Amino acid sequence: MAEALTDYRRLCVHTMTTKPLTLEEAITEYTRAGIPGITVWRHHFEAMGAEEAGKRLQESGLRVVSLCRGGFFPASSAREREEARDQNRRIIDEAAAIGAPLVVLVCGAVPGMPLAEARRQIVDGIAAILPHAAAAEVKLSIEPLHPMYADDRCAVNTLEQANNMVSTLQSPWLGVTVDVYHCWWDPMLKSEIARAGNRIFSFHVCDWRTPTRDLLNDRGMMGAGCIDIRGIRGWVEEAGFKGPVEVEIFSDEYWQWDQRALIEQIKRSWLVYV
Amino acid sequence: MAEALTDYRRLCVHTMTTKPLTLEEAITEYTRAGIPGITVWRHHFEAMGAEEAGKRLQESGLRVVSLCRGGFFPASSAREREEARDQNRRIIDEAAAIGAPLVVLVCGAVPGMPLAEARRQIVDGIAAILPHAAAAEVKLSIEPLHPMYADDRCAVNTLEQANNMVSTLQSPWLGVTVDVYHCWWDPMLKSEIARAGNRIFSFHVCDWRTPTRDLLNDRGMMGAGCIDIRGIRGWVEEAGFKGPVEVEIFSDEYWQWDQRALIEQIKRSWLVYV
Repeated sequence: MAEALTDYRRLCVHTMTTKPLTLEEAITEYTRAGIPGITVWRHHFEAMGAEEAGKRLQESGLRVVSLCRGGFFPASSAREREEARDQNRRIIDEAAAIGAPLVVLVCGAVPGMPLAEARRQIVDGIAAILPHAAAAEVKLSIEPLHPMYADDRCAVNTLEQANNMVSTLQSPWLGVTVDVYHCWWDPMLKSEIARAGNRIFSFHVCDWRTPTRDLLNDRGMMGAGCIDIRGIRGWVEEAGFKGPVEVEIFSDEYWQWDQRALIEQIKRSWLVYV
Repeated sequence: MAEALTDYRRLCVHTMTTKPLTLEEAITEYTRAGIPGITVWRHHFEAMGAEEAGKRLQESGLRVVSLCRGGFFPASSAREREEARDQNRRIIDEAAAIGAPLVVLVCGAVPGMPLAEARRQIVDGIAAILPHAAAAEVKLSIEPLHPMYADDRCAVNTLEQANNMVSTLQSPWLGVTVDVYHCWWDPMLKSEIARAGNRIFSFHVCDWRTPTRDLLNDRGMMGAGCIDIRGIRGWVEEAGFKGPVEVEIFSDEYWQWDQRALIEQIKRSWLVYV
């Protein structure tokens, strides 16, 4: 079990957690709250463009932890698969432009495509974009998603699968993202975290609400659910990960809150439950 | 890949699939539709009692495939765990009374209880009731539930876990239930089905809708989703299972249909997608 965190040095918040805020507003509010890290979702800089977003982020002094998200490799035609790869190369360039050292991959799935085929296409897609990532000096991480997203979001559903893909592809630019929301139930989680070791490129936290009212946008604040977040953080740290801990919460409920109040709640929950 | 089914000899319907029907009505409608098998949920005979239900089922000529459901072993106190075991012994007696050779176990979980602890309590609970099952000549099957139910319904979330428990407990009265809804995403499904072999005591089908609008009651009719049902049936049959194929669909949508129309839809989908 990890010890409680007593300051905010490792705290990073995803712009999707405070979805109603523009990037500018998020920068202002995170800075004001003493949050040092930010993970930027693409639609938050779509309007201003990556170059401009990069300037503002650099001026802010915030640490850009990662860009969310690339991926979505499987498709039913070769042309679409090539388009997805080109899109991912552009996303890698955007990451470089905003100063993000990492692109998180939500690997994709196509309803009705056999999962074994989707998984093959994911490995091929990542292999195809890895040279571009290496040239841009931007890392990529495979984020296994909860099995409830295996239909249309991600055919990589366990850390074991992600680790296997990393082993297959053998690149210093490729690792995994461990998100407690997606992995907490997995009986092999502890051993697969140990196996991932220094290939853990990022670590996401939130909580699993009971009941969960929506498959997508009902994640809980840390402490509002049943995940042993600190226990999992302990495993990740034993494996060697000492980087930022990223708060990524999709919640129709919290998005209706005053976002400054939400940020203060994150800080309180951070000290008690992360 | 299994061949298409050309008749209804292996068709079994769960009374929960036609939840608005009473047990009497279900017996009438299934018989009328030429459905030979029925799996009975407990609340469908709560009012009349298991003895009376058993008489009516026997008179109907329907094959009682299983009773749903026992389980829910983990609890925070020893007294509650003992109550759960007593309850399971009563359920085994009910199965014997209605002529069901099998009780399906939804093993339980307690939000906030570490999953490793819940899993230990599940093994201990099953071990405690197995002698009663053997004496009653009623089999028990562990049904791994989808990871989205790991918080409060079932801490057994992969077929591998269920197989491990069966290996640990070593009883001819204990096996597994494979439900495509819970397991379809699992990268180890094919190999674990092969490993389960003749310990596959039952096989459930329905489909995974995209989008899934509710975690509990939005299962799809076979063919209305993305699960390769026939492919999985092929694996189960290669492993040696030749028994009934049980249609278990929880759906707020279908429960609003005319239930006779629902049964006819099940029969049509059966020939095409199972």
